Amino acid sequence: MYIDNFYIALLHYPVYNRKGDVVTTAVANVDIHDISRAAKTFGARHFYIVTPVLEQHRLVEKILEHWLRGFGADFNPSRKAAFQIIRLKKNLEEVQDDIASLSGARPKVIATGANLPQDERLRSPGSLKREILDSAGSFLFLFGTGWGLADEVIGMADYLLTPIRGPFEYNHLSVRSAVSIILDRLWRENFE
Amino acid sequence: MYIDNFYIALLHYPVYNRKGDVVTTAVANVDIHDISRAAKTFGARHFYIVTPVLEQHRLVEKILEHWLRGFGADFNPSRKAAFQIIRLKKNLEEVQDDIASLSGARPKVIATGANLPQDERLRSPGSLKREILDSAGSFLFLFGTGWGLADEVIGMADYLLTPIRGPFEYNHLSVRSAVSIILDRLWRENFE
Repeated sequence: MYIDNFYIALLHYPVYNRKGDVVTTAVANVDIHDISRAAKTFGARHFYIVTPVLEQHRLVEKILEHWLRGFGADFNPSRKAAFQIIRLKKNLEEVQDDIASLSGARPKVIATGANLPQDERLRSPGSLKREILDSAGSFLFLFGTGWGLADEVIGMADYLLTPIRGPFEYNHLSVRSAVSIILDRLWRENFE
Repeated sequence: MYIDNFYIALLHYPVYNRKGDVVTTAVANVDIHDISRAAKTFGARHFYIVTPVLEQHRLVEKILEHWLRGFGADFNPSRKAAFQIIRLKKNLEEVQDDIASLSGARPKVIATGANLPQDERLRSPGSLKREILDSAGSFLFLFGTGWGLADEVIGMADYLLTPIRGPFEYNHLSVRSAVSIILDRLWRENFE
């Protein structure tokens, strides 16, 4: 049994920089490639790239064009398959509307991050997976670029996912690593 | 309880290209960053970057210099901590010798990849973890760039790690995603 009603979104605003200011980050080419491949492997319905900057939309569209219809489409068909699940949106509102139009209702939103508040919205991957499998609705996982999702995003989330931790204090994964690990944890049977 | 006697190595030769030829790939800057951070988070003792091309060694050394002692060291101390576990070697032989000099004996070698032969060397992350925890020796996980490790490397491995699979046919993760997922699977308690 697998989860067939989940989406992921990578937010480039509002996120923190290393000083704790809310900023807009630039879209990184490697995020498009790595995260779309992980999302496709583990069965996300769409991978939303979210930025309010329209110049960045044009840049991403150019990259998508290359791999979906240009030289890259023939050169690397598996990259094409991954890029087909990408959608480009200006903000979270647009993402939620898009999912509502696809699945009939707005998704429940799950925030991820290394430093989430310890409140009653916190869920382990295993318990969240069971809830998703039991639900008729859809679910949207949010990932932040930069130094992570701004508090205003975390504040509106329905759930918070237990942060990834290693055995020691050090805990500075790239967002590409975090997405990959979380999707693997959700997919795998008998997580707990 | 955590594993404290394992190492990872990223091989740029001998690996396949998409046509199945054995080639040497170029070191990707994002591999250095993402894989060192994941290795540091999950407690690998060293992350070996392996390429026979000496020009690539000079390039990697320049990048390491920036983050270990240059501007980057102050700018981003967590990146410095991750980069401190990186070692640069010309081939697998040198990696094994280095581990032998650190731990007293050559490591057992575990090959990873999406298309490994189905033979008696295959191990799940859980069973391999138990073996590593029970062993006084050290263990080296090999990851291939390009289209994966060449057969000559897979042939000399002591173990093969069960490939990562999602729910469907599609299975084209970046090596950065694969390393992250495998380290998370090894670290986590009660995997099976």
